[in-house]
Amino acid sequence: MSSKEAYYLGLDPGLSITGYGVLRSFQSAPSLVEAGVIKISRDQPLAHRLKELYDGISEVVRAYPLDAIAIEQLYSHYERPRTAILMGHARGVLCLAAAEAGIDVHSYESTKVKSLLTGNGRAPKDQMQRAIQMQLQLKSPPDPPDVADALAIALCHHYSTRPIAQLLSKKRKTK
Amino acid sequence: MSSKEAYYLGLDPGLSITGYGVLRSFQSAPSLVEAGVIKISRDQPLAHRLKELYDGISEVVRAYPLDAIAIEQLYSHYERPRTAILMGHARGVLCLAAAEAGIDVHSYESTKVKSLLTGNGRAPKDQMQRAIQMQLQLKSPPDPPDVADALAIALCHHYSTRPIAQLLSKKRKTK
Repeated sequence: MSSKEAYYLGLDPGLSITGYGVLRSFQSAPSLVEAGVIKISRDQPLAHRLKELYDGISEVVRAYPLDAIAIEQLYSHYERPRTAILMGHARGVLCLAAAEAGIDVHSYESTKVKSLLTGNGRAPKDQMQRAIQMQLQLKSPPDPPDVADALAIALCHHYSTRPIAQLLSKKRKTK
Repeated sequence: MSSKEAYYLGLDPGLSITGYGVLRSFQSAPSLVEAGVIKISRDQPLAHRLKELYDGISEVVRAYPLDAIAIEQLYSHYERPRTAILMGHARGVLCLAAAEAGIDVHSYESTKVKSLLTGNGRAPKDQMQRAIQMQLQLKSPPDPPDVADALAIALCHHYSTRPIAQLLSKKRKTK
C-alpha cells in the first residue's frame, strides 16, 4: 500500500472555522500538498453556515484524487454538549461531502492521533505542532491550531495505513 | 399571511428513521399533504447513511413549493450526549438540504410544540397524537411516532406564523 501514491485529507470540523490539510503519501513518506481553513460567516443562520462549509470542503474534495478522509472520532466532547452537538452538524455535512464524492471516512480518537505522532497520547499542543513540522519538513510549525489539528489527523491516517510488516522490515534494516 | 397558501415541512431527525410531514396552510386551516419516514440503512458507514438521509429529504424538498422547514430545537437532548451528537449529524444534513433549496429553517423547543398544540408543554405522546389527528382531521392518530413528531412541529410552525391580530378577531367573532 505504501509504495503507491495516495492522497489523504484531514479535517478539524468547526462551525466558525474548519481546518483542512491534504497530504500526499508516497513510498511511506508523507508530504504536505495544501492546508488551510474554511472560515464561516458568524452572523448567518445555521443552515446557511452549513452550506458555506459544505461548499468550501466540496471544492477541496474535488481538487485532489483523494483516497481517504480522516476526521476526529465522534465522542470526544462529552463535557461540552452544546459544542459537541454543533460540531455534530459540521461533521455531518463534511461526512456528506465525502460520501457524495465516494471517498471513505476514517475516524480516530484524539489520544490515538497524539500517540501515533508523538508517542504520548496526552501530548500538549506545542509538542504536536513540532511533531507535525518535523514529520512534514515544514519551515515553521503549522498554524492556526485548526490547520495543525487537520494535518495531525491526516498524518495519523497515513501512519495507520502503513503495513506493520513494512515497519518491522525497516527496523531490521537499521540494525 | 394566513390568507395566502403556504407549504410547511416538519422534520423529526434521526439516523435510523427521519420522520417528515408536509402541511398546506390556507386561510388559517392546515391540511395534510404528505407524511412518511425516511428509513436509513443501519449497517452502512455513517457518511453513507447521511447521504441516504440527504438524498431522501432532498427529494421531498424538491416535490413541494415549500415556504419553510420546521425542526426541533438544537439543545433538547443534553442528557443523552451520544444520541444528541449523532442527531446533530442528521440535523446538519437536513439543514443543508434546506439551505441548498433556499428555504428558511425554523427551530422550536419541544415544550413550545406541545404547548401550542395541546396547551400543555409536557403533554404525553398519546395526547399529542390525538391533538394532531383532530387538528388535521385525520381518520386515525398519526403513526409511527416519527411522523407524529414531524407533523407536530409543522403544525407548531403553522400556529407560530398566524398573526396574533387575526387570532384575536376570530375570538371576538365567537362571542
